[in-house]
Amino acid sequence: MAEPLFRRLCIIGPGLIGSSIARFARSRDDIATTLVACAQSAATRARVLELGIVDQVEADPARAVEGCDGVILCIPVGAYAGVMARIAPHLAPGCILTDAGSTKGSVVRDLLPLLPAGVHLVPGHPMAGTEYSGPDAGFATLFEGRYVILTPLPDSDPTAVERVAEFWRRAGAMIETMDPATHDKVVAIVSHLPHLIAFTICGTADDLAQETREAVLKFAASGFRDFTRIASSDVAMWRDVFLNNREALLEMLARFSEDAHALGRAVRYGEAEFIEDRIKRGRKIRQGLIDRKQA
Amino acid sequence: MAEPLFRRLCIIGPGLIGSSIARFARSRDDIATTLVACAQSAATRARVLELGIVDQVEADPARAVEGCDGVILCIPVGAYAGVMARIAPHLAPGCILTDAGSTKGSVVRDLLPLLPAGVHLVPGHPMAGTEYSGPDAGFATLFEGRYVILTPLPDSDPTAVERVAEFWRRAGAMIETMDPATHDKVVAIVSHLPHLIAFTICGTADDLAQETREAVLKFAASGFRDFTRIASSDVAMWRDVFLNNREALLEMLARFSEDAHALGRAVRYGEAEFIEDRIKRGRKIRQGLIDRKQA
Repeated sequence: MAEPLFRRLCIIGPGLIGSSIARFARSRDDIATTLVACAQSAATRARVLELGIVDQVEADPARAVEGCDGVILCIPVGAYAGVMARIAPHLAPGCILTDAGSTKGSVVRDLLPLLPAGVHLVPGHPMAGTEYSGPDAGFATLFEGRYVILTPLPDSDPTAVERVAEFWRRAGAMIETMDPATHDKVVAIVSHLPHLIAFTICGTADDLAQETREAVLKFAASGFRDFTRIASSDVAMWRDVFLNNREALLEMLARFSEDAHALGRAVRYGEAEFIEDRIKRGRKIRQGLIDRKQA
Repeated sequence: MAEPLFRRLCIIGPGLIGSSIARFARSRDDIATTLVACAQSAATRARVLELGIVDQVEADPARAVEGCDGVILCIPVGAYAGVMARIAPHLAPGCILTDAGSTKGSVVRDLLPLLPAGVHLVPGHPMAGTEYSGPDAGFATLFEGRYVILTPLPDSDPTAVERVAEFWRRAGAMIETMDPATHDKVVAIVSHLPHLIAFTICGTADDLAQETREAVLKFAASGFRDFTRIASSDVAMWRDVFLNNREALLEMLARFSEDAHALGRAVRYGEAEFIEDRIKRGRKIRQGLIDRKQA
């Protein structure tokens, strides 16, 4: 059997992602000897203990990271700077600090300036999730067959990066490495913009319903329904994602708007070929996903 | 046992919707004594006979409707005017002409001028479907628990309208009645605009992938994936839907754009409360769908 990757691993924020990490780590012997969870809410701490997925819970992040050789942040990215200010003085030399946040430029911006000498920062982003949140929503297999993007810094210790990569591989994930700026663009188009669109169209439909006094949402069975599944995601997490991936998200919104209005223009002027072309392209891309087993 | 609603029912276009109608009609004794399917393609006609879901197939719509007391158009709405020109002289007095098209203003526009005296036009739209197409994609339970919107004309014969409503009720559907203009607005927001968005964002992502030489679509697991499911729909059908619901679709695209850019503006200026508000609204609407069992 392989050695545990960590002696003492601290999960800050045992929500959907954090509690899934706890569950998979708990399910095998080669991840961490001791698991600590840190949560602000007393109810969450009690629930996590009740679920039996960690060894210890802490309210104070400074106490939680004490003596840990691994710390993973699983909180909304807007909370990183505040938590880092609390934990930085308590991170032991040699400790690996990683995270599961959906933005990476902001993570480097918020964590790196406070990073103590000898502590290794390895930002990461598991591309997995559901529309549910909280410690009860997690499950051990959440990361199986999913991508985890790591965005190590140019001077990151390769051993630390490899340890984090191995951590995710043992969770069943596939590892990709890229720089934070590229990561932020990629997720802006495949995840953040789709969420912005989904939140928006729900509101647009609701406004229309109020105007026409028709129960628009009653007929949401086709098309719209998939959009609302996305739209039911966690509020604080998505607020922070939008605010912390602003540049890339606004760029993708602008690109998407141009393309949507080009298609709208074709509809206005009856340009059947242009419209067919766009639809065919969508189908081709879908087929590409199916071939890659991502659909 | 109830009397069959039709002596001889003709399904023009046995694709996903048409073949689902054939299957449910064939599965019980109270729909039609004889089922006729009309398809241009010899392969489709052969396949429909092989599937054993109709009694007779015809290539020529004029021959297909001969002697029928029920005719249902299940073809792309752009083909209605041409088919109506062929069948109108052959529709028997007392026959009910209905359809399954996703636009209703254009259907009235294309069918009504050619409608022979004594033939009853009852436009209908089953709000059901999958991303697959063709006679093999259909199934008898496609309409169960789904809405069917009927848009009868002010002078429609109530008996004919009731017969079409009963037809769909026996398929397990719920009936709603509204005027064609309201129908077109409602479906523009709950179905047509989501499809336009889905087709568009696939292309926007693909452009980005080509520019950055990054395999953007590889990471589509979250968010984006649901959009591409929608984007894999039938080309001719959606081209025709867009072209035949132009006014309502462009109005909804404009409304959606305003709302998306308002959210984009809040992201740019860091207006956390506005963003939270939009996300919460999406969640509330999602909950409404779950409560209505439409999600």
